Amino acid sequence: MKNFMDKDFLLSNDTAKTLFHDYADKMPIIDYHCHINPQEIYEDRKFSDITKVWLSDGNFGDHYKWRIMRACGYPEDLVTGSGDPKEKFRAWADAVSRAVGNPLHHWTHLELQRYFGYNGTLSLKTADEVYELCNKKLAEPTMSVRGLIDQSNVKLICTTDDPVDSLEWHKKIAEDPTCKVKVLPACRPDKAINIEKEGFKEYIGKLSDASGVSIKTVSDVKDALAKRLEFFHSMGCINSDHGLDYVVYSPASEDKLNKTLAAALSGETVCQADADEYKTAILLFLGEWYAKHGWVMQIHYGAQRNVNYQTFKKMGPDTGVDAIGNKPCGAELALLLGELAKKDSVPKMVLYSLNENDNQLLATVGACFYEAGINTKIQLGSAWWFNDTKVGMIKQLTDFANLNVLGNFIGMLTDSRSFLSYTRHEYFRRILCNLIGQWVENGEYPNDIEFLGKLVQDISYNNTVKFFGFKVD
Amino acid sequence: MKNFMDKDFLLSNDTAKTLFHDYADKMPIIDYHCHINPQEIYEDRKFSDITKVWLSDGNFGDHYKWRIMRACGYPEDLVTGSGDPKEKFRAWADAVSRAVGNPLHHWTHLELQRYFGYNGTLSLKTADEVYELCNKKLAEPTMSVRGLIDQSNVKLICTTDDPVDSLEWHKKIAEDPTCKVKVLPACRPDKAINIEKEGFKEYIGKLSDASGVSIKTVSDVKDALAKRLEFFHSMGCINSDHGLDYVVYSPASEDKLNKTLAAALSGETVCQADADEYKTAILLFLGEWYAKHGWVMQIHYGAQRNVNYQTFKKMGPDTGVDAIGNKPCGAELALLLGELAKKDSVPKMVLYSLNENDNQLLATVGACFYEAGINTKIQLGSAWWFNDTKVGMIKQLTDFANLNVLGNFIGMLTDSRSFLSYTRHEYFRRILCNLIGQWVENGEYPNDIEFLGKLVQDISYNNTVKFFGFKVD
Amino acid sequence: MKNFMDKDFLLSNDTAKTLFHDYADKMPIIDYHCHINPQEIYEDRKFSDITKVWLSDGNFGDHYKWRIMRACGYPEDLVTGSGDPKEKFRAWADAVSRAVGNPLHHWTHLELQRYFGYNGTLSLKTADEVYELCNKKLAEPTMSVRGLIDQSNVKLICTTDDPVDSLEWHKKIAEDPTCKVKVLPACRPDKAINIEKEGFKEYIGKLSDASGVSIKTVSDVKDALAKRLEFFHSMGCINSDHGLDYVVYSPASEDKLNKTLAAALSGETVCQADADEYKTAILLFLGEWYAKHGWVMQIHYGAQRNVNYQTFKKMGPDTGVDAIGNKPCGAELALLLGELAKKDSVPKMVLYSLNENDNQLLATVGACFYEAGINTKIQLGSAWWFNDTKVGMIKQLTDFANLNVLGNFIGMLTDSRSFLSYTRHEYFRRILCNLIGQWVENGEYPNDIEFLGKLVQDISYNNTVKFFGFKVD
Repeated sequence: MKNFMDKDFLLSNDTAKTLFHDYADKMPIIDYHCHINPQEIYEDRKFSDITKVWLSDGNFGDHYKWRIMRACGYPEDLVTGSGDPKEKFRAWADAVSRAVGNPLHHWTHLELQRYFGYNGTLSLKTADEVYELCNKKLAEPTMSVRGLIDQSNVKLICTTDDPVDSLEWHKKIAEDPTCKVKVLPACRPDKAINIEKEGFKEYIGKLSDASGVSIKTVSDVKDALAKRLEFFHSMGCINSDHGLDYVVYSPASEDKLNKTLAAALSGETVCQADADEYKTAILLFLGEWYAKHGWVMQIHYGAQRNVNYQTFKKMGPDTGVDAIGNKPCGAELALLLGELAKKDSVPKMVLYSLNENDNQLLATVGACFYEAGINTKIQLGSAWWFNDTKVGMIKQLTDFANLNVLGNFIGMLTDSRSFLSYTRHEYFRRILCNLIGQWVENGEYPNDIEFLGKLVQDISYNNTVKFFGFKVD
Repeated sequence: MKNFMDKDFLLSNDTAKTLFHDYADKMPIIDYHCHINPQEIYEDRKFSDITKVWLSDGNFGDHYKWRIMRACGYPEDLVTGSGDPKEKFRAWADAVSRAVGNPLHHWTHLELQRYFGYNGTLSLKTADEVYELCNKKLAEPTMSVRGLIDQSNVKLICTTDDPVDSLEWHKKIAEDPTCKVKVLPACRPDKAINIEKEGFKEYIGKLSDASGVSIKTVSDVKDALAKRLEFFHSMGCINSDHGLDYVVYSPASEDKLNKTLAAALSGETVCQADADEYKTAILLFLGEWYAKHGWVMQIHYGAQRNVNYQTFKKMGPDTGVDAIGNKPCGAELALLLGELAKKDSVPKMVLYSLNENDNQLLATVGACFYEAGINTKIQLGSAWWFNDTKVGMIKQLTDFANLNVLGNFIGMLTDSRSFLSYTRHEYFRRILCNLIGQWVENGEYPNDIEFLGKLVQDISYNNTVKFFGFKVD
Repeated sequence: MKNFMDKDFLLSNDTAKTLFHDYADKMPIIDYHCHINPQEIYEDRKFSDITKVWLSDGNFGDHYKWRIMRACGYPEDLVTGSGDPKEKFRAWADAVSRAVGNPLHHWTHLELQRYFGYNGTLSLKTADEVYELCNKKLAEPTMSVRGLIDQSNVKLICTTDDPVDSLEWHKKIAEDPTCKVKVLPACRPDKAINIEKEGFKEYIGKLSDASGVSIKTVSDVKDALAKRLEFFHSMGCINSDHGLDYVVYSPASEDKLNKTLAAALSGETVCQADADEYKTAILLFLGEWYAKHGWVMQIHYGAQRNVNYQTFKKMGPDTGVDAIGNKPCGAELALLLGELAKKDSVPKMVLYSLNENDNQLLATVGACFYEAGINTKIQLGSAWWFNDTKVGMIKQLTDFANLNVLGNFIGMLTDSRSFLSYTRHEYFRRILCNLIGQWVENGEYPNDIEFLGKLVQDISYNNTVKFFGFKVD
């Protein structure tokens, strides 16, 4: 029996151990997709309380953990409410200990081990002891935001930013010679695309203000977005992200699109079919723009958001009441990319579906598009959100290996709001090394450690640098 | 090499063996969803012939086995027909021996071992010997219905009952002090919901008679159902079940619904779109009723029934010609539950899809709904029907573990028409213990046998008692 | 650690080794579905250059390999273009070595080992050496088309042939006493079915010429097809294949169908809904014809073809720009087969979806149809195209085992354009034997080597002979 989460955690054979300890583990981290607040990096924020760090604190909240606590029957007061921090922590300790086989159990202990030096087991029995220990540790200077980033060996972070954002904190960070990590914006223009959702009209007002473009037609929207993208580009941005319910492809005439936009701007509700047409037009425009400017286009789809209206009404979005969807959109994806191909304007892409049944479809659609000099121009993104589990990662890696070239994979990102999540890169690398190690031990791939060591280092770090074109030391 | 199905069957490591033998195996059984006939419990029926017990006998038939025999080219005479019982048994022995890797091979041998004391292997070679042995054994008093239930350590059984049922046998059982097992009805109102299917009009007549409500409007249907639910409630029922082709969500006006109902009651055919509206209305009504009365609402969907018209025409439903479907209905499920949430009326639920590709969707939609004091208010049901296999169970458990809190799972049911199926609980418990055992042995969960022993006991029994609110000694 | 791809490649336990080496490996091959050119068999073609054999040569091209090379950023010149053969080979060597975990890495080395006697590892380092070695070996007489077929122990091959084909090469082969392998046509009438695709009108002209039937109505199309099927039947054909985007079931009146056909024949574009009706009619007609004549009907569906318009425009179909689709059509499949059942005209079938999420649906729909004396009348086809991987095969075998009778499976085919692909049968047999071996070693199936040895031989060869009714020595 192996010890619980010891140094060879998830490494079941010697090849895996060598690949991880001698190769992958030495590589820095590029976190090319996350949701952390750049202001907190600039201000090098400190934390006083593990409950705030782990459960919620102002705008920050870990809805992964909330779901587990609610599933264990804890009242909202101890989940997101005004309950006593220590009681909340105890509730979390109890819940996570019952979540046998859940990645949160692993993530929690990786964070306790790496950042807090605690190698025990969190449960109701140890909750008080761990609570004190963590809070004491949080007072140390290495536990500030920059301290955490630094000790995690993170070289570059891409935040997620609305096109109307001023990027003021990115500017300040770039101008601060004491900040070792590079922080780039990534552009997420969802609000300019979700024409059928509440707040669209108001958002277009903001976009107009930020871009200086008066917006009446779809062409104006494109102009305004282009202005903002140019600004983002000037700030070093080379990475975009789109959160779609499902992938759309519904071509329509400029005239029809303008009517739909006019209706939305006059406050009318836009039906889904009309919205899909508008979205198609904007996505095609942006895809072309990204291709021209060498950006990477990330597409995340397949979530059903705010499924529980009760919670959404009280707490807003991203509060733990989202789910996986299963609307089929493989044909629309193929048509959307095919249309870009007709214009020779397929950008580098990363495709993520929240429904892992789509993995193989995405990998094979992606592999239809290619460009000399670029390794796997359309990537199957790392296992995302609900799939960000050991089995989800193994499936994603196996699908990528079967249907593309594993050595080209750009690897892991945290997608996280927390500064303690960098251990997920370690989690991923262990799983990657173990998978390859198993193949070698089973005689399914040659025992060429040097070659494979380089390959896991590429997947851990080098491929990302090259694929995005990041400039790091 | 391990011996074939010995005491450590499916237990590949020491932790798994301890968890199963010292903890899970000691727990009684609650079979909260099955299709056995309560009359046979009351009358403590005896069986004379293993062919009848296993293949068919009057209203009983094991369509799982029929499919395997037909796949092996056996003529219908030896499957469901008037063939010689011994020849039929030989046909089954031959078929099952060729079904390498099929759960029926395991179930068959578990039943032979546990109830008949036969530890050999069933095949054409041993068929005659096993046939004699089983028939001899069936004559023993412990092999009556109550004997089988008793030796299986079953504490409580929920049958599946139509709202118009008189529940006379449940009443008699409850009044019989010699019957050790508790037998509760579970209400399955499918016939009141399937407005587009043959027999609806006649069924509404029966419902009217049983409830004393004259039915002309949808409101009348609701009243009639409520009357019957109240009666079921008075008989101890706290558990319902719905068999849907797919989950629906199509709101419509009361007026439209009444027109659809009137058409159906006048003998017209109802189109699928109209039927979906009616179903939505009734499901919402029932969901609310269940929530108010603390019942559990089970939803089974994803089957394509009576695919082979030839067989259906001759033999009726449940004759082995059903299949898995793949109509996507994740959005409808989310909307249906969301609508109940708006009214603060989400009942405790168990969701089952016959298509295991839906597992993760169901687990995540379910986890959006929660209530203080209830562990995992909407459960992902145990691997069902065609998924009731080793790999199906491992997938269901892994999906539950990844996306919810495994320690909250309410575990196994037989869904069976047979009194020999209780060994499926053993099958499930072995798989559960092995899965957790592997995690412990691999250092993925702490080696805390006491905690995990309690956890597997909870999943095997205690969670079910608590979730449904069963009153057992 | 096992050596890379040694004699026990993929065989992880003793039972598996015995089953493979003593049983499965001894069996001849029937390749009942492939895309090789019968002319090349008749003429016993020789090859001069491994680059041509592996990458492209006139009409032949290995689009599996092209995708991997493009994914590695190689310019088209080195993939399908006029680049230097040795440079192309080096590019392939580099690409495949980075494709860790990809079946192409295994297939490549199986071919190098079995046909070229090379037991090393192909990579950029060894590329030149392997290139010379292969080209030298190709000059040997055993490396002609017939030599390769002969040394692969292939007894019978079914090619894929259009109904208008003259089958002249099949006739010549049949009349050539020096040709040891039996070569039968398989009929693929896709072009007569794809009424909405370019070239339909021209194709109907050819069908009219070949059959001598003047085609104006759908009834004429059926007559013409029947004439050609009768000719194919007279040439020994008992096997058909259909490549559908998705399975259709849209009944329509004869009148409506004739209008659609008339429109297509006058050069108008046919919409998808009308096309689906026409396809339904022809498929039902053919299914009935096949049932009457004892043919096997293969249905392949689930591909999205020519996704990248740029490549398709330049290079045509089958050039590596196809993908997996996910349009749900389980209901249509059930209805199509149900309709044939109503007429007592369900032919023997093999169902393949390119989307492996459909496996369980196909296995269960198939099992609803059966006939005394036929083992598994509707088979779940072997893991196909993008699923033709180790994990894809394990999944297909496990799904088949869980939902049908593994002992009835008709096993592997190459689906290949290459004469070096017969090693895929070996790959399959190793995986099959390992899976069964694991079950035995884990005590999940009795250790009856004689029975299981016979069973793997049946799956490798005997079941195919019996299912199709092939006449082989």
